[in-house]
Amino acid sequence: MATLISPDQFSPVEDAEALQKACKGWGTDEKAIIKILGHRNATQRKQIRQAYEELYEEDLVKRLENELSGDFEKAVYRWILDPADRDAVLANVAVRKAESNYHVIIEISCILSPEELLVVRRAYQSRYKRSLEEDVAAHTTGDLRQLLVALVSAYRYDGHEVNERLAKSEADILHDAIKDKAFNHEEVTRILSTRSKTQLRAIFNRYKDEHDTSITKNLSGDPHSDLQKALRTAIRCINDPKKYFEKLVRNAIKGVGTDEEALTRVIVTRAERDLNGIKELYYQRNSVSLDHAVAKETSGDYKAFLLTLLGKED
Amino acid sequence: MATLISPDQFSPVEDAEALQKACKGWGTDEKAIIKILGHRNATQRKQIRQAYEELYEEDLVKRLENELSGDFEKAVYRWILDPADRDAVLANVAVRKAESNYHVIIEISCILSPEELLVVRRAYQSRYKRSLEEDVAAHTTGDLRQLLVALVSAYRYDGHEVNERLAKSEADILHDAIKDKAFNHEEVTRILSTRSKTQLRAIFNRYKDEHDTSITKNLSGDPHSDLQKALRTAIRCINDPKKYFEKLVRNAIKGVGTDEEALTRVIVTRAERDLNGIKELYYQRNSVSLDHAVAKETSGDYKAFLLTLLGKED
Repeated sequence: MATLISPDQFSPVEDAEALQKACKGWGTDEKAIIKILGHRNATQRKQIRQAYEELYEEDLVKRLENELSGDFEKAVYRWILDPADRDAVLANVAVRKAESNYHVIIEISCILSPEELLVVRRAYQSRYKRSLEEDVAAHTTGDLRQLLVALVSAYRYDGHEVNERLAKSEADILHDAIKDKAFNHEEVTRILSTRSKTQLRAIFNRYKDEHDTSITKNLSGDPHSDLQKALRTAIRCINDPKKYFEKLVRNAIKGVGTDEEALTRVIVTRAERDLNGIKELYYQRNSVSLDHAVAKETSGDYKAFLLTLLGKED
Repeated sequence: MATLISPDQFSPVEDAEALQKACKGWGTDEKAIIKILGHRNATQRKQIRQAYEELYEEDLVKRLENELSGDFEKAVYRWILDPADRDAVLANVAVRKAESNYHVIIEISCILSPEELLVVRRAYQSRYKRSLEEDVAAHTTGDLRQLLVALVSAYRYDGHEVNERLAKSEADILHDAIKDKAFNHEEVTRILSTRSKTQLRAIFNRYKDEHDTSITKNLSGDPHSDLQKALRTAIRCINDPKKYFEKLVRNAIKGVGTDEEALTRVIVTRAERDLNGIKELYYQRNSVSLDHAVAKETSGDYKAFLLTLLGKED
């Protein structure tokens, strides 16, 4: 369930006027910006961008980029885009530092539905005049490249049929490869990048049944191996996206310093989707509400904006 | 340009009735079937299938499969399907004998536009409840698998920008790999499966300019290497589909015995597209018209049907 609170009725023109007023003159009225944009869904934001463009012959996204700064600017910029366009931007940012940020590419490849991933690939091409897999391939090497390109090119079957016999035999293939530390075995890439998600979950369950431990546990041997980490991330994203995001947010918040990049990404990309479920998991796991944790770790307009997307009533 | 001659005006119901009459009772009126279906485009054929289903509560495709036989049946069956659905069937037939028939998979991957390939992948999933790349991966192994899965999963950028600097450096990469006989080099697969077709043609041109011979010629060393053959096929399909098809037809016809599978495939898949151009190339290269050659090598209803699709006036 979504956390975003948006009105059934709204006026794109009035919103565009209010945003223009908030940006006008000396100083910017960040509170007004949060109050409007923090309560509009993707369709509504698009209408506001269009109304603004027609009224002022200016790109609202660019205007806001000029007016805002820091983590708040980044969060608003991510938020105001269409979801597919936003994922294209996130993927591009990640691609340019792909060796260290490949988990964002895996998230997009493995958490979105096959049709959604396709829409992101299309948005990527129209924005960057290249294909996503082309950029991923050009910025990575070796086994990691093999895996990432396969995942990002996948157009999986989206049905719910399970082939139990095949699940058993491919669980065994994965187990043998992991036992032999052959993480780059072509069968591992083939299974993870071509089987449907339903079938893969059956394979992971079978793995657990037969070998008494989860496949991700068996993959946590070497924390310095990017390939092992990438395989684990892919499996976790396919297996249980909410659980994956809960841990991502937990790690972003805990310890000294906050990983604003990750925190913003989870809240902005999930607020209209399943952020409520992620909040529930977070509370179960940490005995503290996510709103509370975010409020403690952030400040100013950035904090106010995230809390609004998390569903805080004004 | 297409060779198919189809009327602007037609009645799906009258066609369905005529087809039912042609199939009814003892014996089948193949001439009537050719006269109708051989002159209807994809949209019209679809309307006829729908009208037939509504009138007789029976699947026209199945009915025709029961009534017809041999090469003629196969050709009609291929023809009557929607183009994307037909390619899904062709791919599936090829996949099941993938080690020997991989060129069909390469044709579909490299000749269709990125969006068309996507529609075929969707049709494949809806027909077989699995993804195309999943089946290709499950039926092949090693380097050939690597290449085929990458080609069939590609969703290339379809724009016409060329990066000349990149074309030069990647032509050199290809040249070095071929010189070292490293046909399975990951860079070769990356370049062929992720770059846009326009960019790839620039790379192939650059290759020729710098190294005085075409890349396909440099790849013809070992006629027994499936990987080398597959690479050549991919490059030829990307570089010049019409030229590729002309040679395919030429080889299908020449010598003792005809390769009906290939002959049917080219005529059926291209009749509504560029078969006229292929005919022109064929005439230039062989000094005999394709119609004439086909008439000489085939017989009966099969011959009559192919000639109709080739644009012969009744």
